[in-house]
Amino acid sequence: MAIDEIIDAMISIHPLERVPRAGFLLRGVTEPESVAAHSHSLALLTLMACNEYPDDFDSSKAVEMALIHDIQEVQTMDIPLPVGSAEFRAAKEDTEEEIFKRLFAGVSPALAERYAEFRRCDSPEAKLVRGLDKVQMMVKVLCYQRENRGHLDEFWEHRHNFPDFDMPVLNALFEAVARKAGRKPPR
Amino acid sequence: MAIDEIIDAMISIHPLERVPRAGFLLRGVTEPESVAAHSHSLALLTLMACNEYPDDFDSSKAVEMALIHDIQEVQTMDIPLPVGSAEFRAAKEDTEEEIFKRLFAGVSPALAERYAEFRRCDSPEAKLVRGLDKVQMMVKVLCYQRENRGHLDEFWEHRHNFPDFDMPVLNALFEAVARKAGRKPPR
Amino acid sequence: MAIDEIIDAMISIHPLERVPRAGFLLRGVTEPESVAAHSHSLALLTLMACNEYPDDFDSSKAVEMALIHDIQEVQTMDIPLPVGSAEFRAAKEDTEEEIFKRLFAGVSPALAERYAEFRRCDSPEAKLVRGLDKVQMMVKVLCYQRENRGHLDEFWEHRHNFPDFDMPVLNALFEAVARKAGRKPPR
Amino acid sequence: MAIDEIIDAMISIHPLERVPRAGFLLRGVTEPESVAAHSHSLALLTLMACNEYPDDFDSSKAVEMALIHDIQEVQTMDIPLPVGSAEFRAAKEDTEEEIFKRLFAGVSPALAERYAEFRRCDSPEAKLVRGLDKVQMMVKVLCYQRENRGHLDEFWEHRHNFPDFDMPVLNALFEAVARKAGRKPPR
Amino acid sequence: MAIDEIIDAMISIHPLERVPRAGFLLRGVTEPESVAAHSHSLALLTLMACNEYPDDFDSSKAVEMALIHDIQEVQTMDIPLPVGSAEFRAAKEDTEEEIFKRLFAGVSPALAERYAEFRRCDSPEAKLVRGLDKVQMMVKVLCYQRENRGHLDEFWEHRHNFPDFDMPVLNALFEAVARKAGRKPPR
Amino acid sequence: MAIDEIIDAMISIHPLERVPRAGFLLRGVTEPESVAAHSHSLALLTLMACNEYPDDFDSSKAVEMALIHDIQEVQTMDIPLPVGSAEFRAAKEDTEEEIFKRLFAGVSPALAERYAEFRRCDSPEAKLVRGLDKVQMMVKVLCYQRENRGHLDEFWEHRHNFPDFDMPVLNALFEAVARKAGRKPPR
Repeated sequence: MAIDEIIDAMISIHPLERVPRAGFLLRGVTEPESVAAHSHSLALLTLMACNEYPDDFDSSKAVEMALIHDIQEVQTMDIPLPVGSAEFRAAKEDTEEEIFKRLFAGVSPALAERYAEFRRCDSPEAKLVRGLDKVQMMVKVLCYQRENRGHLDEFWEHRHNFPDFDMPVLNALFEAVARKAGRKPPR
Repeated sequence: MAIDEIIDAMISIHPLERVPRAGFLLRGVTEPESVAAHSHSLALLTLMACNEYPDDFDSSKAVEMALIHDIQEVQTMDIPLPVGSAEFRAAKEDTEEEIFKRLFAGVSPALAERYAEFRRCDSPEAKLVRGLDKVQMMVKVLCYQRENRGHLDEFWEHRHNFPDFDMPVLNALFEAVARKAGRKPPR
Repeated sequence: MAIDEIIDAMISIHPLERVPRAGFLLRGVTEPESVAAHSHSLALLTLMACNEYPDDFDSSKAVEMALIHDIQEVQTMDIPLPVGSAEFRAAKEDTEEEIFKRLFAGVSPALAERYAEFRRCDSPEAKLVRGLDKVQMMVKVLCYQRENRGHLDEFWEHRHNFPDFDMPVLNALFEAVARKAGRKPPR
Repeated sequence: MAIDEIIDAMISIHPLERVPRAGFLLRGVTEPESVAAHSHSLALLTLMACNEYPDDFDSSKAVEMALIHDIQEVQTMDIPLPVGSAEFRAAKEDTEEEIFKRLFAGVSPALAERYAEFRRCDSPEAKLVRGLDKVQMMVKVLCYQRENRGHLDEFWEHRHNFPDFDMPVLNALFEAVARKAGRKPPR
Repeated sequence: MAIDEIIDAMISIHPLERVPRAGFLLRGVTEPESVAAHSHSLALLTLMACNEYPDDFDSSKAVEMALIHDIQEVQTMDIPLPVGSAEFRAAKEDTEEEIFKRLFAGVSPALAERYAEFRRCDSPEAKLVRGLDKVQMMVKVLCYQRENRGHLDEFWEHRHNFPDFDMPVLNALFEAVARKAGRKPPR
Repeated sequence: MAIDEIIDAMISIHPLERVPRAGFLLRGVTEPESVAAHSHSLALLTLMACNEYPDDFDSSKAVEMALIHDIQEVQTMDIPLPVGSAEFRAAKEDTEEEIFKRLFAGVSPALAERYAEFRRCDSPEAKLVRGLDKVQMMVKVLCYQRENRGHLDEFWEHRHNFPDFDMPVLNALFEAVARKAGRKPPR
């Protein structure tokens, strides 16, 4: 039984509650969501989406991916994505997998397997969670803009913020969040 | 399909990222975890615990409970538990269920069912998550004390912070967190 | 002499300086006023209002009510008002009176008497302070909106935010704050 | 009737809720009390002290002084006291009275009279409130130290933090707060 | 060698990282720049301006002035400028020079000389840095307004925020920042 | 003249005032210094060190390096150093230089040359500033520990936090800061 290792892992990920989401912080959102809060919000969205499409996704697997997808940021902080060369991003991915393995070294290997699957992005659940990651982000953009927090208009203009992986559920969710914001997804 | 309702629910729960955990705030922890970050941390702990005891718990069900167990606090804020009479606590529970239903009115009823099961506290998963809720809290106490944040010694003295529901996994986790803090669970 | 008890009471109410006003926090106001700051602001407003109407109110009594009216929130946090059933609100009131008594157990009973009078809401001063509590809130709404903080338009639409208890002073103050905000009180 | 002027004054003093107490901020206390919260806390302490000595002080007058004693800091911020020459402090006092007058220009002159009386420091109430201002400060030092916030030991060493104006009530309160902190007031 | 004195000076100026710029805090900007961050930003601006006009200014001298110009605020906090009488401002200047000398008592007198030169404001570099101090402020106003932070319109209306000392570089920079904000400098 | 480009650069680096120093944030320091405040503090330290050794260093060059050494973090955030493989660090360095060039594209190339020199680390000034970067960090560790902020003991144990490049000035400064903290530099 890996009881001590579970507590060690919990201690290691403790600072995630204070790692700020960089894209919001750098655009003037004060007190932006933490990576931990983002992961909670994404896991809930994933659960609701899978409940709507029970035959298309393994809900349990998808929710697990949402919970762990950013967990290595407890050591790297949230590095804004578009920054850097292809080499930088590849090396960053390797570093992140390394960190993930160290964080959960003693506990059940199930988490590491789930993480690897998410990274490969070749299962329906991995694609779903990658898409929902952006749906969640755009919901936050909508909410922050209602609250007059930050300079966020540009989020609505970039197609890479609306990746639907040709899945109707993602497409519908992006349409819905844009509609509520009085916008249209970019083409 | 309840696509719009999912986005509505996401917007409604948005402020959870800034609701502070009251027990920590009131004892002088600055920038304490939010209820959203707490829920993420608890869901991860639940996942790890269930991975260790795959035959004893329905992991998927337990993780869902962890994700939603405090979600009504987006409207009530985090009201410290020991406060108030039995009548107050009963009325509070009713109010919380009411809020939960309104929050997820249009989406799949699966969430509301899960929430009701957690509230009844009669399944192994509900008991597990109630116990882990306190394990997670004591891990945070340990981490904050290492960081010299707040006046938290009393947390180690109250038996109601160490509810093990006669489950070996909970008992072992409470022992482990106390040991790492150089303490013993109270008897 | 209750010297030690006075210091004990001061220590007990210390965290009030960090209890955030929930209605503002939940609508996206970052760094909202604390309950302590709110109480200071309300006490000043009460003092100014009584100075204008010296024959209508016992200024000293009204100011005391303003100072203590929310003090139990040091244990309950600020629970948003419209939440919950009539039973919940009644039980909440009882709990609050209980807390108040415990907080000031050893000091002069004069505070507890003043608090009880405020709760009964049957004296001119109690009504005045209840009305000014909302005047103060709407001044903060006006100020936060000037500063682009939060999503607060709905405050101007609810009649229960403008309770004048048929008192000309309250009516005039609500008119004045609305006028400065370029609004009209709702009818 | 000075209704508009009252609202104007309330708007002018609005930022007091975010002016940090400088002595704490500069010694590493994060999220220190605001000047507004300090004034609330002092007014409550004044009320309790006067309730214990009903024949010695005009409670109403003393509480008013507590409420307004630092209000000009909404324009100057909290300038740490021991800084500066006698000339600087005299000019600062003049500036502060000037600001006070402008802030409450249109409202009842009663506030300005009370403020002037506090500044002259020749009535029992003015002396009481000046002493309690330090009692309140030392209670906060005690509370912050329990919470491990900041580098505050030196506060216990300076006699000017324990001015008792030869009043038994102040002397007793300083003794009590030091005793609870396991200290002695300096001689 | 004044090695210990250098470390002492660094410890003394440590709190500058948390001294908020008062003008922004008081107008509702949450998490405003610190005086340390302001000084960094001004030093960079000074460096860039001098690089453009290498024959007109001693870059090294000007950058040093930018680095130290507000350093006494680690003891006084940032006192808003327009507040106070001429006497107050003169006494404040004396106090500030006094503090500066004490802060760097043991280290090379070069800093104190540079500070005195800045205070006299009779060299091109001193005038440049005084002008750039306002250019930097107006850049922050522009940035905060883009981010919807605070109530800052009035900054664009006061001529004293646009002091060009008849220097083309200052004039051009004020024109540029106003143009980017869609405004014109006041006349 | 590159006036508009200077303003553009100032706008681009604006968020640096809110980028937190990751090593402190992740170890429980609340409200840690920003990268901008760190750079200001380092530039001052550099200036004092060069004033003590006027024959050994080009003060102006060293101060400029201090001002710009972390400026790319306005886009990458502060990525904790020991994280990642050699490939990751090399790719990160390339990315950072790229960002630096873009940030100051239109302004005088002098800054980019200075930055490149700092990166090569082959001049006395570059080595000095790299060493002082750690001296400044250890001064902050000392200050935060006095203030009971965070869990920072491990900083004193790692030799890589005390790089003296065989320079007496660095060696003496590391000795001095450790002595004031009641510690010894590791060997």
